[in-house]
Amino acid sequence: MTAPDCVFCRIIASELEASVVHEDERTLAFLDIQPLTPGHLLVVPRQHASSLAELDSEDGAELFRVGQRAAAALRASELRCEGVNFWLADGAAAGQDVFHVHLHVFARFTGDGFGLRLPPDYAIRPRDELDAAARALREAWVA
Amino acid sequence: MTAPDCVFCRIIASELEASVVHEDERTLAFLDIQPLTPGHLLVVPRQHASSLAELDSEDGAELFRVGQRAAAALRASELRCEGVNFWLADGAAAGQDVFHVHLHVFARFTGDGFGLRLPPDYAIRPRDELDAAARALREAWVA
Repeated sequence: MTAPDCVFCRIIASELEASVVHEDERTLAFLDIQPLTPGHLLVVPRQHASSLAELDSEDGAELFRVGQRAAAALRASELRCEGVNFWLADGAAAGQDVFHVHLHVFARFTGDGFGLRLPPDYAIRPRDELDAAARALREAWVA
Repeated sequence: MTAPDCVFCRIIASELEASVVHEDERTLAFLDIQPLTPGHLLVVPRQHASSLAELDSEDGAELFRVGQRAAAALRASELRCEGVNFWLADGAAAGQDVFHVHLHVFARFTGDGFGLRLPPDYAIRPRDELDAAARALREAWVA
């Protein structure tokens, strides 16, 4: 399936320019035009899925396999790379901007200026609170 | 393989307490004791791998499949969830703290206090610069 107004579907269809690094039957990996660090990649499924809820699970599995190979390429390349992050945003509240699932893979190095902004109440939580959350998730888990 | 001093291997072996949400042949999903938001999960391979370079690719694929189901559980549960992020840190420079590969899956909602700190020079880059980085990655890509 393709969504006509989706910028990533249009890249997949070669209707829009992209700096492509890898393609296979299920996925395409190309550079983010606004990189967090040089070589910042997006790995996307060819089949349009606006969210994780819509994503074919085998496409998801392949996103990780390709992400793992992208991490190896970043480390082996001439680009600066002392570590690698994967990042995926599902939903506007999580920072998703393009509504075609995409896995971010980007290099990290000392002084890269990137980081996580942690919540003000970030702390180790008591076991009973963790157990209650785990119970809620087990009840909502679909087998 | 198990690493005797690895805290996640000890959780997998039931030698250390954890609030477990899901387990299958390849993976275990349990709560982070220091959650970014309530219900923050870690999905880990049973087989010890300190880094993405060591990780069995089928274990990696399963991390994503389980992460996708964890996202669905967060959204379906009573926990507050308007969006979901995946996060993975490979290497100390990327923020990895436990050297057993783990995929973070956590809920997001308005006012959660979490965010990304972007580099000061974060901007759309010219196509020739992106193409040069893509070329470097293609050359380093292992088929």
